[in-house]
Amino acid sequence: MEQQSALRGVIAPVITPFTPDLRPDIARLVRISRWLLARDAGLAMFGTTSEANSLAVGEKLALLDALVEAGLPVARMMPGTGCCALTDTVELTRHAVRHGCGGVLMLPPFYYKGVTDDGLFASYSEVIQRVGDARLRIYLYHIPQVSQVPLSPALIERLLAAYPGTVAGIKDSSGDWNSVRGLLERFASRGFAVYPGSEVLLLAAMRGGGAGCISAQANVNPAAIVQLYRGWQQPDAQAQQAALDALRTVLLGFPLIAALKALVAHFTKDDAWATVRPPLVGLTAEQRAALLAALPPGFAIAGL
Amino acid sequence: MEQQSALRGVIAPVITPFTPDLRPDIARLVRISRWLLARDAGLAMFGTTSEANSLAVGEKLALLDALVEAGLPVARMMPGTGCCALTDTVELTRHAVRHGCGGVLMLPPFYYKGVTDDGLFASYSEVIQRVGDARLRIYLYHIPQVSQVPLSPALIERLLAAYPGTVAGIKDSSGDWNSVRGLLERFASRGFAVYPGSEVLLLAAMRGGGAGCISAQANVNPAAIVQLYRGWQQPDAQAQQAALDALRTVLLGFPLIAALKALVAHFTKDDAWATVRPPLVGLTAEQRAALLAALPPGFAIAGL
Repeated sequence: MEQQSALRGVIAPVITPFTPDLRPDIARLVRISRWLLARDAGLAMFGTTSEANSLAVGEKLALLDALVEAGLPVARMMPGTGCCALTDTVELTRHAVRHGCGGVLMLPPFYYKGVTDDGLFASYSEVIQRVGDARLRIYLYHIPQVSQVPLSPALIERLLAAYPGTVAGIKDSSGDWNSVRGLLERFASRGFAVYPGSEVLLLAAMRGGGAGCISAQANVNPAAIVQLYRGWQQPDAQAQQAALDALRTVLLGFPLIAALKALVAHFTKDDAWATVRPPLVGLTAEQRAALLAALPPGFAIAGL
Repeated sequence: MEQQSALRGVIAPVITPFTPDLRPDIARLVRISRWLLARDAGLAMFGTTSEANSLAVGEKLALLDALVEAGLPVARMMPGTGCCALTDTVELTRHAVRHGCGGVLMLPPFYYKGVTDDGLFASYSEVIQRVGDARLRIYLYHIPQVSQVPLSPALIERLLAAYPGTVAGIKDSSGDWNSVRGLLERFASRGFAVYPGSEVLLLAAMRGGGAGCISAQANVNPAAIVQLYRGWQQPDAQAQQAALDALRTVLLGFPLIAALKALVAHFTKDDAWATVRPPLVGLTAEQRAALLAALPPGFAIAGL
């Protein structure tokens, strides 16, 4: 059952480092991926935080190849493969499955708005049938504030009924506990893995039968989030959750992806990490200073 | 000056026909493109109406090659080349320029929302510099209700100042006359081509110094729209505009792209035209019957 998937736990939507001329920086991506795995965070490369939709399909294929060739464990990988174009999604998903990735995180096609559940069902169906591989495990990606294409419980129900072994779970990045709770109550008992898309809902999700969380903050604070995941039934769990929430509040005072990259750059003393691809922009020097000043006492990124 | 561009006039965001297994149907795309050109409509292939963002970059490159190889006039082509990923936009744009296309229609990167004008300026700048070709003519694509990433007048001003020969115009698909009028008043006198993204604003735009229109309806009614473009100073212009508006109202009673394809399928007696790619869905038989029943008396598509 999915309950035993190697993807349960804390998963980081890994930031994508770039070279000065904005090419994906393979060496640094391997480095942070290895660092995250050593802290028991899984890898959801090519997520929103990864600037994945600012990468061409060919760039993502090459990065995935590099991570696999570096010997990182494919069972702990959940690459994002959902694109606007059906054929792109199929190509990326097929590639991930052939590599043996534990799962894929799949946005719906997100250009057209107001599309029907019939159209979204057809999209996921076509991908599943074209990939045509029993190893495929799809984690649906619900992030309506960015994609502007929500995934309804009725659609999830329909996909689960049609592809029960393949549709394995969901990342709910709505930030809305009622949404996450609804998914947990309706689907978690059926072995469907529900991940809130933020560490701030980790404790609540675990109490409701969640699978862990997929958390941007995990890029800079994996050990603490993993500690709460493992110890959510311990007496100090609420205090741990409060500490994660406090860091989240600091990070959200800035553009999140640029802030995460700036923190890695600061603590590694390697400014190359700070580069983002347009349309994102890096933090200004003033923003970076304000971010550092606002960090909780003792916060640091070590060993990267 | 851009005032003399071969792209002035009525431009159709050409529907993309698909084969039964959802591959782009090159033969039918060439056929409708030739039919549109014969009625003096230019070709904005790979627009929103073209389901362009449901196509992989490689599929778009192959379609553009096929249209050029078919001998269609490149000066009358304005392919959509704006993708989420910088590298995709550069690849498509470079290809279009090398073919000699009259211009390209460029969406901003549309996955990330709430991005800054600095980030959007950096996106367009990087593309222009990487393409690095004096022949490049960019028509900006403002369609906030779909892209969710609006292009502000301040951004346009900044792009025009930095790249005065290259940033050639805009398609404003907001549907908001105040927006189109604002662009006309501020930019049209500088040789910047302003196209409303619908034929319902054609007469008003021409009176305000517009360059024509880029119109989904042109896929099924090009001659009438071209007639108004040519005759906008004639006494019957308002009546012509009213006829276009009436057809638009009928079309908007249905999902627009599916409705256009259903009309072509009906009048050519060739149902292959009706196929859409997910996440879109075709009209039901009931919808198609209702659409046909609602058409203005005498409406037909002939010669395709």
